Amino acid sequence: MTEVAEATRLGRLDDEARSVIFTRARTANTWAETPVSDAELNSVWELAKWAPTSANIQPLRVLYVHPGEGRDRLVKHMSDGNKAKTAAAPAVAVLAIDTRFHEHIPTVFPMRPEMKDVFEANEDMRTAGGKLNAALQAGYFILAVRAHGLAAGPMSGFDAADVDAEFFADGRYKSFLVINIGHPGDSPWFNRLPRLDHDDVISWA
Amino acid sequence: MTEVAEATRLGRLDDEARSVIFTRARTANTWAETPVSDAELNSVWELAKWAPTSANIQPLRVLYVHPGEGRDRLVKHMSDGNKAKTAAAPAVAVLAIDTRFHEHIPTVFPMRPEMKDVFEANEDMRTAGGKLNAALQAGYFILAVRAHGLAAGPMSGFDAADVDAEFFADGRYKSFLVINIGHPGDSPWFNRLPRLDHDDVISWA
Repeated sequence: MTEVAEATRLGRLDDEARSVIFTRARTANTWAETPVSDAELNSVWELAKWAPTSANIQPLRVLYVHPGEGRDRLVKHMSDGNKAKTAAAPAVAVLAIDTRFHEHIPTVFPMRPEMKDVFEANEDMRTAGGKLNAALQAGYFILAVRAHGLAAGPMSGFDAADVDAEFFADGRYKSFLVINIGHPGDSPWFNRLPRLDHDDVISWA
Repeated sequence: MTEVAEATRLGRLDDEARSVIFTRARTANTWAETPVSDAELNSVWELAKWAPTSANIQPLRVLYVHPGEGRDRLVKHMSDGNKAKTAAAPAVAVLAIDTRFHEHIPTVFPMRPEMKDVFEANEDMRTAGGKLNAALQAGYFILAVRAHGLAAGPMSGFDAADVDAEFFADGRYKSFLVINIGHPGDSPWFNRLPRLDHDDVISWA
């Protein structure tokens, strides 16, 4: 065929929608007191979950942390530079890898259930596949937060081993990113940092 | 403050826009012959580049591969199950980690230029930071492809060492994902695979 079939012609985002999740969106560093509801947080996941992973393995797990006791337990494991931001965030998501994601393969990849055993037998493949795909899903998650009219504040600065001991004591989940979520407060943005020059990133063959 | 300041009230995506990048979008397995222009491919990056990375390190590099000689060089390194799909794709992106991303830190994170030396001295931190953030950016990239009315077909099934020898002979870039890009062809979608149950992914504290 030489033309795109009408049935599979795809929509695209207009400039306004692109600005919401890419061009105008910013990482927030202060938070309004406006709460974020559990319904909003559930909806973020119901959007993010549809984007693709290798062999549909979906290794990402999300612990949503409420203000109060839950947040207090998390804040003490954040880096000093992140404690105040997280302590003020209306909601926080701890993103983790399920290191035994492959147990779900017979359900999520039913045409090749034997891949469960392939992953079970090959720890390097399991670890690499979990890390790559959970991070891909974290990218989707951040943009899904923004799609809901919320700001995200992703952070690598925390003690992952301590967070895991605090919230994932059985050792199965390994945290790798913490994301503050809410409505921006006063002076929420730092100056925008430069992006690499196009030709430093893009090459052609 | 108890209310969201009007100046920082954020837009959100409507259901149509959400469907374009999340809910209705699908991984394509066949391709129309309709070409994808270099301008479209450049625009995909100009959108994806704005989403956040840790300390703004931006380790992702993108090699865009044209039909013809470039694509032929790539196809031979794809897994057997992926060769035909990539051989028919109007455009292909090889996503790689720049293992020396930290050399750009004085430019991209000017408030802490010394982090270049911290990464230089700590190979484990450099490798982990590169992998996590390049994969986050790959997630943004896939959704940016979709934002342009194009379908993405991401694949882990290829010989990364051979791809690197073929295209990145100096050893600095390490490929980790190949993404076919184009307009969907005949019967482009497999049946949609199940997503994990909400409660298998989401927990609360």
